[in-house]
Amino acid sequence: MTSVSIHIDCIDVSLEKGPDIVDITPELHRIVQDSRISAGTLNATMIGSTGSLTTIEFEPGAVADLKQAVNRLAPPEEQYAHELAWHDGNGHSHVQAALMGPSISLPVRAGQLRLGTWQQAVAINHDIGARVRKIEVTVIGVR
Amino acid sequence: MTSVSIHIDCIDVSLEKGPDIVDITPELHRIVQDSRISAGTLNATMIGSTGSLTTIEFEPGAVADLKQAVNRLAPPEEQYAHELAWHDGNGHSHVQAALMGPSISLPVRAGQLRLGTWQQAVAINHDIGARVRKIEVTVIGVR
Amino acid sequence: MTSVSIHIDCIDVSLEKGPDIVDITPELHRIVQDSRISAGTLNATMIGSTGSLTTIEFEPGAVADLKQAVNRLAPPEEQYAHELAWHDGNGHSHVQAALMGPSISLPVRAGQLRLGTWQQAVAINHDIGARVRKIEVTVIGVR
Repeated sequence: MTSVSIHIDCIDVSLEKGPDIVDITPELHRIVQDSRISAGTLNATMIGSTGSLTTIEFEPGAVADLKQAVNRLAPPEEQYAHELAWHDGNGHSHVQAALMGPSISLPVRAGQLRLGTWQQAVAINHDIGARVRKIEVTVIGVR
Repeated sequence: MTSVSIHIDCIDVSLEKGPDIVDITPELHRIVQDSRISAGTLNATMIGSTGSLTTIEFEPGAVADLKQAVNRLAPPEEQYAHELAWHDGNGHSHVQAALMGPSISLPVRAGQLRLGTWQQAVAINHDIGARVRKIEVTVIGVR
Repeated sequence: MTSVSIHIDCIDVSLEKGPDIVDITPELHRIVQDSRISAGTLNATMIGSTGSLTTIEFEPGAVADLKQAVNRLAPPEEQYAHELAWHDGNGHSHVQAALMGPSISLPVRAGQLRLGTWQQAVAINHDIGARVRKIEVTVIGVR
């Protein structure tokens, strides 16, 4: 029987003022190759409560549309209870990130990250300033 | 010590014009049984950027309600930047799918997929035409 | 080579009438310590179709903001097809939970659950009455 292996990694992503959306697929591909895992699962988690992860077709139009939709979920110009206490102006950022969720699980097949042809993994910064975000990545599977 | 095993599978799901929602619980149950894994986790990922996965009580009313809510998140009749470039009429599909997210993680306990009594795993097609969707499934645990 | 281990656990969380949001980070920390796993991934899944999991900065303001946003996604006072059949008044609860999603994956690093400093894992009850919710937790990694 082939035994199950694990590979741990972490990527730093520079993001502009939110909502900013960056393609992290190349970094995830590199991690899968480093892991030498041929079949299994990759779990990625955004560290920090004003960021999120998802997948989308990473082309400028769809990215602009997603930014607009995210700002409809929790509009920056509304009043937030978070700001009454903290006055840091990012109440909407917390709500947007919590609604989107911090994590995704993606398949590893034939030694590659398996996504659709027009499907990319993306990191989103919802905060009101530029941020370098940490994304923790765990790959589990057989070599 | 019992060693950890992995089982890899993939299901094809036929979906109508979006938003269409199909119960994939029977297929996931079958995969868990094939895996002979008694305790662990099942990760499922929608391949393609206009589909998503979640859980819901799969009865016609709740399914109709979810379709309506999904169309409120990104209404098909609005203007999307994606369509200015691609003219394929599915700008809303990309946004809906990215907001919902591509993946779910479900527990395997006592050799069965563990869900609530009225909780089913579902695949959603957000695209403007019928699609056969691939869902990659990875089960990790002890036999 | 160090072999991969698995640790299975389950927590019960008491939640008030939805939307109610409870910090489950202490329970997850305890489970990670019990697991003696030093590096890997923790998957948590809400059992039941009117609950969900995510992360947020768990302070009263952000929590109140998220409750409001969740009720905007599927307002309790609207008409739902689910209720025409079931008359249980929780049509919005099913939609909210399905949009949020049932599961999160969080990293385990240096024997600890790795989250941002102001990032907590939370369980959400979307239902119209108080509930004790089961959350199944699977930790996979190396000891």
